[in-house]
Amino acid sequence: MGWSRRRGAPSSDDVALQQVAGNGLINRRALLGQGAAIAGAMGAAGAITGAAAEPLADAPWSLAFGEITPALQSPSPFEKDVVRATSNPKGEFRNSHARTPHQLLSGTVTPNSLHFSINHCGIPNIDPAQHKLVIHGMVRQPLEFTLETLSRYPLVTRMAFVECAGNSAGMFAKVPLQAPAGLIHGLVSNAEWTGVPLSVLLDEAGIDPAAKWLVAEGADAQFLDRSVPVKKAYDDALVAIYQNGEHLMPGNGYPMRLLLPGYQGNMNVKFLRRIKVVNQPAYSYFETKNYSQILPGGKTWRFHFVMEVKSFITHPSFGLNLKEPGLYAISGVAYSGTGRISKVMVSADGGKSWAEAALQGPIHEKAFTRFVMPWRWNGQPAVLLSRAYDDGGNVQPLRADFVAMRGEAVNPVTTPLAFPNQHYNSTTSWAVDGKGEVSHVYA
Amino acid sequence: MGWSRRRGAPSSDDVALQQVAGNGLINRRALLGQGAAIAGAMGAAGAITGAAAEPLADAPWSLAFGEITPALQSPSPFEKDVVRATSNPKGEFRNSHARTPHQLLSGTVTPNSLHFSINHCGIPNIDPAQHKLVIHGMVRQPLEFTLETLSRYPLVTRMAFVECAGNSAGMFAKVPLQAPAGLIHGLVSNAEWTGVPLSVLLDEAGIDPAAKWLVAEGADAQFLDRSVPVKKAYDDALVAIYQNGEHLMPGNGYPMRLLLPGYQGNMNVKFLRRIKVVNQPAYSYFETKNYSQILPGGKTWRFHFVMEVKSFITHPSFGLNLKEPGLYAISGVAYSGTGRISKVMVSADGGKSWAEAALQGPIHEKAFTRFVMPWRWNGQPAVLLSRAYDDGGNVQPLRADFVAMRGEAVNPVTTPLAFPNQHYNSTTSWAVDGKGEVSHVYA
Repeated sequence: MGWSRRRGAPSSDDVALQQVAGNGLINRRALLGQGAAIAGAMGAAGAITGAAAEPLADAPWSLAFGEITPALQSPSPFEKDVVRATSNPKGEFRNSHARTPHQLLSGTVTPNSLHFSINHCGIPNIDPAQHKLVIHGMVRQPLEFTLETLSRYPLVTRMAFVECAGNSAGMFAKVPLQAPAGLIHGLVSNAEWTGVPLSVLLDEAGIDPAAKWLVAEGADAQFLDRSVPVKKAYDDALVAIYQNGEHLMPGNGYPMRLLLPGYQGNMNVKFLRRIKVVNQPAYSYFETKNYSQILPGGKTWRFHFVMEVKSFITHPSFGLNLKEPGLYAISGVAYSGTGRISKVMVSADGGKSWAEAALQGPIHEKAFTRFVMPWRWNGQPAVLLSRAYDDGGNVQPLRADFVAMRGEAVNPVTTPLAFPNQHYNSTTSWAVDGKGEVSHVYA
Repeated sequence: MGWSRRRGAPSSDDVALQQVAGNGLINRRALLGQGAAIAGAMGAAGAITGAAAEPLADAPWSLAFGEITPALQSPSPFEKDVVRATSNPKGEFRNSHARTPHQLLSGTVTPNSLHFSINHCGIPNIDPAQHKLVIHGMVRQPLEFTLETLSRYPLVTRMAFVECAGNSAGMFAKVPLQAPAGLIHGLVSNAEWTGVPLSVLLDEAGIDPAAKWLVAEGADAQFLDRSVPVKKAYDDALVAIYQNGEHLMPGNGYPMRLLLPGYQGNMNVKFLRRIKVVNQPAYSYFETKNYSQILPGGKTWRFHFVMEVKSFITHPSFGLNLKEPGLYAISGVAYSGTGRISKVMVSADGGKSWAEAALQGPIHEKAFTRFVMPWRWNGQPAVLLSRAYDDGGNVQPLRADFVAMRGEAVNPVTTPLAFPNQHYNSTTSWAVDGKGEVSHVYA
């Protein structure tokens, strides 16, 4: 009988599993043809005898009628730890952060229950029948819109990440935070958004050609004001009313929000109630003090909106230790506020050598791209990091280069975060020690 | 001051809003440039005076600190009706259906909470640490896999719809069901799935080249067996472990399921515990009696797996009435088990004339594509329907042609559904009367 280990695989073990960079990185082409070439090399599966399979032992859930099929389904009780880390669980009179646990997720979509959310004055419980969006200022005819009237427009659907400008701020610290990827990078999420192009609404109101800025305002008690260039509105801005198919989550702006793909999260004004068309920016608190990047010399970037090209490894990462030497997949997310991810390079030796990861297509503009890199861990110490490139020619900086340019802060564990704390986008390194334990390092 | 109605719009009202098919269908090119050309023509927005905008009146939620930011966020209380319709809410000792409410959703992703689910023996509460997948039969080395070992493999991420072979079975009835789109077509959903290519696991076990079939078995009390061609495993089958980024919902197969993109839902075996490699199909109950299509002459399709090209309009649809004449967007989903949607044609006059809808890209293979068609409703009766085409050259049949070929059933309202009741994929027509009320018609 002609047993085959590799039905239809294009190449032999030796070629397909060749090391292409230091410390065990394997050519991503090993994943072509659905990765048949790596089969057998994994060593993760347990070998059994036929007797153990026929008949299979029955678990209790195989022998009894199961549970009710509910109107809304929710994760298994065994997934109870897959939640957002919250900074203000009692709803005290201050801001609240809820971070996406990236180290427990895969793919590219962030489920709505786990999309990150920052609220400076709690989450408003808005009645959509009472909520209105007003567009006024330098327009021919001021207009107001409701969730119901917006729903009549031809809607546009697209993937987009939203990232807080302060995401990863802990990495400005001089000492690497020992925390899961979601605690470090959890203020970015990715969803399919559906809404009305803002340009359509501005055209309906009849925008003055002399207008250069929009001031967008939210309906929660924060009264957030952010200035948005009119040019962005005519590029790809939406008034979003659906998130992954359903209406927005309350913490993500229900019933409507501004979606400015690639721009810092705070500008994607939630609970959107007003767009005032003007000819100069508002210079509001959140664009002049907070969410504004102070540089080492004391100067500040003025109206620096685009979230830069970035990536981080989610598997393995802090908290996900390796049990034994063998073949693994290094996997993570990459994204850029400028456009599409063009490639992601991965290193297993702290940046001495690099190899190109496989990307899971199609690659959306200004949205998460999942990268995967096969890796053989030999049981020796390794340092894993990823580096993303976008189609605008931008390259994610290495941490040393980044802090040389942007500065470091005091240790956020012992001292509250001080500036600089915005637009952090360097590489993140995870060290694997000889026991398979993963820690966060600057390398 | 030079007021502009149409900053950057490529063409004039007359050209852009030209009617391209009967009863008010508008050229989809009106949506190009983000649809600026249709601005002003909508008539949905409310005109206001500047005085009403400055200052804006404040709602209660603008004046008080809001609610807690929770670890897991859930929809607004105002969205409490956005749930799945369930057929067995008390969990009685029979099968259960939960249908996706498509008429309340938009975009293409079905949120995990709303993904359809059918369970013949309830939903098992499986401990992933105890659950194993065994691959045995005609293989060199039987193997077993756990959620943890599968997680070490290079994972593949892709969009895919899953559709029950019995979806839309109510449309076999001689009289059109007066029910929302989700009750008629709610046994199909669309998600981003992440998992291990089945081919990798079969190669690791060393599949016998003489093997032609796999028999896949679930771990719930149903002990579902389905036969899958080996060829499909080497095409695009996955053992899926993530659904829209998080681990599978219990009702969708937690901790692991077979994903056979485009094949009838029941074959995508949930709670997957065994794949036996064999040289002939199992001829099990669910592939010979249930989920098998009996034709008018009494013959049955044998192993007819692919879900055919299909589309339905979600907006407007039954239950979503039009308030007033004006410009609307006709929108819905299209998909094909064969490949990609190539175009969707829409009619507003019951099929007498048709125009091509705009598709929201990128267009994924064997996944939902959202289509949008601008439409001016003049207040007169109209009949709306959509018709999908795929890149394999398949065309969604009109209902009259479909029932001529496949037969009709008794009225399911007065009599339990009888055969034929599988693989229904004809067009669906919604009639709009002079008051804007929408009903389901066969036209």
